[in-house]
Amino acid sequence: MTTSCSITFQPSGRTVLVAPGTVVIRAARRAGLHINASCGGTGVCGKCRIRVEEGSVEGGLSERIKPEDADQGIRQACTAGITGDVVIRILEAGALKSGQLGTEVPERHRAALHVFDIDELKEEGIFIPPVEKFFLELPVPDHNDRQADAGRLLRAMDEQYGERHIHISLYMMRQLRRVFREDNFRVTATLARPVNKRFRSMLQHIQAGNWSRRNYGLAVDIGTTTVYGQLIDKQTGKIIAEAGDYNRQISYGEDVITRMIFAEKDDGLDKMHAMAAESVNNVIDCVLQGRDIDRDEITSITLAGNTAMTHLFLKLEPHNIRRAPYVPVSTMFPPIRVTDIGIDLGGHCMALFYPAVSSYVGGDIVAGIMGSGMYRTDKITLFIDIGTNAEIVVGNREWLACAACSAGPAFEGGGIRHGMRAGAGAIDDFSLDPVTLEPMIMTIQAKPPVGICGSGLLILIATLYECGVIDQSGHYNRDLDTGRIREGRSGFEYVLVRAGDSGIDTDIVLTEVDIDNFIRAKGAIYSGLTTLLHEVGLSVADIEQVILAGAFGSYIDLDSAMTVGLLPEIDPEKCLYVGNGSLMGCRMSELSNHIRRDVVRTMQMMTSFELSEVPSYTDNYVASLFLPHTDGSLFPRAQQRRRNLEELRRQEKAG
Amino acid sequence: MTTSCSITFQPSGRTVLVAPGTVVIRAARRAGLHINASCGGTGVCGKCRIRVEEGSVEGGLSERIKPEDADQGIRQACTAGITGDVVIRILEAGALKSGQLGTEVPERHRAALHVFDIDELKEEGIFIPPVEKFFLELPVPDHNDRQADAGRLLRAMDEQYGERHIHISLYMMRQLRRVFREDNFRVTATLARPVNKRFRSMLQHIQAGNWSRRNYGLAVDIGTTTVYGQLIDKQTGKIIAEAGDYNRQISYGEDVITRMIFAEKDDGLDKMHAMAAESVNNVIDCVLQGRDIDRDEITSITLAGNTAMTHLFLKLEPHNIRRAPYVPVSTMFPPIRVTDIGIDLGGHCMALFYPAVSSYVGGDIVAGIMGSGMYRTDKITLFIDIGTNAEIVVGNREWLACAACSAGPAFEGGGIRHGMRAGAGAIDDFSLDPVTLEPMIMTIQAKPPVGICGSGLLILIATLYECGVIDQSGHYNRDLDTGRIREGRSGFEYVLVRAGDSGIDTDIVLTEVDIDNFIRAKGAIYSGLTTLLHEVGLSVADIEQVILAGAFGSYIDLDSAMTVGLLPEIDPEKCLYVGNGSLMGCRMSELSNHIRRDVVRTMQMMTSFELSEVPSYTDNYVASLFLPHTDGSLFPRAQQRRRNLEELRRQEKAG
Repeated sequence: MTTSCSITFQPSGRTVLVAPGTVVIRAARRAGLHINASCGGTGVCGKCRIRVEEGSVEGGLSERIKPEDADQGIRQACTAGITGDVVIRILEAGALKSGQLGTEVPERHRAALHVFDIDELKEEGIFIPPVEKFFLELPVPDHNDRQADAGRLLRAMDEQYGERHIHISLYMMRQLRRVFREDNFRVTATLARPVNKRFRSMLQHIQAGNWSRRNYGLAVDIGTTTVYGQLIDKQTGKIIAEAGDYNRQISYGEDVITRMIFAEKDDGLDKMHAMAAESVNNVIDCVLQGRDIDRDEITSITLAGNTAMTHLFLKLEPHNIRRAPYVPVSTMFPPIRVTDIGIDLGGHCMALFYPAVSSYVGGDIVAGIMGSGMYRTDKITLFIDIGTNAEIVVGNREWLACAACSAGPAFEGGGIRHGMRAGAGAIDDFSLDPVTLEPMIMTIQAKPPVGICGSGLLILIATLYECGVIDQSGHYNRDLDTGRIREGRSGFEYVLVRAGDSGIDTDIVLTEVDIDNFIRAKGAIYSGLTTLLHEVGLSVADIEQVILAGAFGSYIDLDSAMTVGLLPEIDPEKCLYVGNGSLMGCRMSELSNHIRRDVVRTMQMMTSFELSEVPSYTDNYVASLFLPHTDGSLFPRAQQRRRNLEELRRQEKAG
Repeated sequence: MTTSCSITFQPSGRTVLVAPGTVVIRAARRAGLHINASCGGTGVCGKCRIRVEEGSVEGGLSERIKPEDADQGIRQACTAGITGDVVIRILEAGALKSGQLGTEVPERHRAALHVFDIDELKEEGIFIPPVEKFFLELPVPDHNDRQADAGRLLRAMDEQYGERHIHISLYMMRQLRRVFREDNFRVTATLARPVNKRFRSMLQHIQAGNWSRRNYGLAVDIGTTTVYGQLIDKQTGKIIAEAGDYNRQISYGEDVITRMIFAEKDDGLDKMHAMAAESVNNVIDCVLQGRDIDRDEITSITLAGNTAMTHLFLKLEPHNIRRAPYVPVSTMFPPIRVTDIGIDLGGHCMALFYPAVSSYVGGDIVAGIMGSGMYRTDKITLFIDIGTNAEIVVGNREWLACAACSAGPAFEGGGIRHGMRAGAGAIDDFSLDPVTLEPMIMTIQAKPPVGICGSGLLILIATLYECGVIDQSGHYNRDLDTGRIREGRSGFEYVLVRAGDSGIDTDIVLTEVDIDNFIRAKGAIYSGLTTLLHEVGLSVADIEQVILAGAFGSYIDLDSAMTVGLLPEIDPEKCLYVGNGSLMGCRMSELSNHIRRDVVRTMQMMTSFELSEVPSYTDNYVASLFLPHTDGSLFPRAQQRRRNLEELRRQEKAG
């Protein structure tokens, strides 16, 4: 079933290979071809008609297609599934006369995925988990060897594994006598290593018999919105299970600031902590469900979150994080017994938190820098994690500088009339017939459209700008010959989906206010990164690699991002995305104590800039409040595309 | 009132200087003179008549002295107090005709007291308490210095005091923000130093303002019978208060073995722990009572006890301590938060336990070796702590060997018909008219005699042996012309106090069974120390110093100990006692972290011998079951004194 099917689209003659089962409209999109479609691919609007000229497709029929048309091979592109090689004609209603549409509608360039390589760790000899299990056959005491139980264990750890300087707490000491004698002095010791080699390891757990091969860990990213977790086999390094859950703190406020304010109330901090712990516990329940792994076999959990999230989780007062001069309680966090912080795992399990750089550059970013490999690359790298707050890091293995800026919630759908999170029915892709200005929209899970998610919004605005529907300052061109642009309650708006085709009872529109909010968000990020680059004496041309992190980073279309001026124009080949870099960093730390040492080194060499105090930031910001920028020459490719489309439109009208 | 009074006793002409208020009978004892006295100095028996020849005394009158005798200066020695210079005649009934008594009744040679010298610590620059307070004026954060609270503290500790590598627990971290801002970043940090310099210090406590001069510690000796504590000002090193209390575990058994057996029952260990903690808490209450010191100002407590006591206190299972091959759970104990072990002090206060050497050479002995200075002397030293178990250590700063032997409870009054602990009314000194065999007995607090304490028993048996009343094998000489030796319920016995003179309603006697038990006890110790010396290739002649520890060690009469063969014959000038050496060791550790390091070094260089497995021990033991020993030539001085007394008695009878 991995065989690809070859689809040729007429009149352009373009051919793409797709997996069987792909719907025709997605295949067209893959080929860079526009097909009018307003209903998100649910088969309601009936606009996306095509004709099958050779081969056959599955489905694609509805009451909107007359039987005689169906006999001619007419189908709806959004519901017709590909089963084999086929030639398809996009009907005139949906294509330019010139048939050149495919060259003008950009392909989507997602950044390539950076993959974390366990084998590399193994080859380098640093696949040494921070919490490990050791099986010991201790010599049985006799009259020639009366060493105490504790001393006997320490001696064997040294003799058999070269492990020295092990701290045994009173709690552990109390278990030794009984456990040693349960299986005739055959025991498994669980050891937690220090980050700094000169300090002591801790005996975490002692079990009778050999359990050394049952050693599991958890990596957890505590996001403001979502908590993601991975269950890891620390013997092999493999991910056994993954799960995510909403961060239950959301019920007390969507954004971090609201939660910090709540935490200053009477028992607010306790509640914030409890909610976060509950979220993590739920993720743990999910990854363990149906697996033959005991909760007690998890010996460590590495967590990363932004500085506020980490404070709330650890019940550290976040008060001064949001007040100038923005001082957190701590940026380094000691290893903590999970039971002390409400995580429902064995009393011996240790929680290891990623250190932060400052109040606004948190452990999630440090984890991302580790997870993405930025900390060890020679290339000058720009790392961007885009969310309500965008964190920007620039540098390489030798130096790092970072800054955070507040982008606002636009990329998560906040402040956008029909904005929403990336869920079913969210418009996540869009193209436009440059002449008729009729849209092709696609939704997540091909559900009736209910709103626009962040990555969809980016493509939407970029496309409207390239097609000349909106101008540099984000206003609609009111002279266009289309019924889709109209004056609404709050200024002009573009009608993406009419009420009849939408999954909600109203038109889905993009207003000028929405566009303005989007421009402010992208402007904050662009000016942040250019300011940071300037502070370290670099320009965009010096960047050898871009790493995009976070859910948004993974889904954005690079060309669109460069068209609107969210990212500088950089060769897409130089761009990588790490998905949840924070989670990846946590997993790396779970598997390599060596990397935990690198974390400290990395964190210590990072210089943090407070953008609000760099005088040029405000100027840069104001200059960024245009599409793509006041200085269009910074975005030559985007400007060229816009000019090409304008020419095409002119020719079509003339033709 | 420190002026001494000169007392001259006739007919011997001996003069001693005593403090005003001393009773005449004690002054006579000091002069080495015997005065018949059966009632322990309570004025009941009326035997201790003396005549004041020059000067005057206070009291000493009773209905037993006729008015006409009183006019002649006749008084009772036991109740007559000295107020000035005086000449006193011991009346014939109480003295030998020859008047030579003074030369024959030995003086009591207590060992000289070893004193621990704080100034020495100061001079050596090692007066650095393991838990110390530091006052810090932290820089207040501003936009040029946004370091986190925790990092700010660490930076200041380094810059202002050169203290690095400090661990801050989550518990402490949670307090930083609030405390820092209470007194504008003026804080006092309490730091617990590690024994091993390479490891990390722990932040124990953080207070707003300057509290650096309020730093107190506790030294506590957890004895099987008694818990002693000292409250120490860690700024000056001075002892502020001392207190002792019975170890409340006694209600579950007088000896350690009984308690260990009890601890194996259901919640026995919990109970043993609770009793010990209650005892310590009571001592703490006592030392704090009426003092302007807050419980929270105590930042550390150093404790020492034998291995079983330490296990019971820490709730470590003592099961294998009393079963071959006698393996304790641990001999090293980590620093412990006092609240984890039921000690009623602040949550920041750390409990530091002295490490042990083995199941039978515990932390109290290690503390004694430290407290007595044995660990740093060049002299080859014999250290003996005598109790139910006697611990013996030989060596010097370069090497140490130790052994323990079970002496049984005889020295604490156990297994002795009228044995008792050293309390009011216990006979603690004794002398004998070598001809009439009439005794002079003295009791603690001059209360009516109720029994014999350990140090009294030693003097009693030594005196009876020297006077020929008992023979080498511990049997009474039945040919003597005295009504005080009679056949009792269980063999022959000597009547020390007749019922009428005693504080109980029966005669106080010393039976042959008592003597036998005593001989076994002293034999165990003597054979233990000779076996240990032999194992390390030394003999008694090589010993340059003897240190006696424990309450018994501090009270024993050295000559008596050598007469009975408890100690080898060594120049009394070479003997020191340390009193409660364990307590002294604890105090040293409270004041000098450097000494805590020496403790580990000392403990590690100690070789432990299990006497029961040294073949010659049994032979040595059997040879020691005589007074003083099978081989009398080992005790030439004792033998000479016996011969001298025999000669004197012969002459007196002839005269």
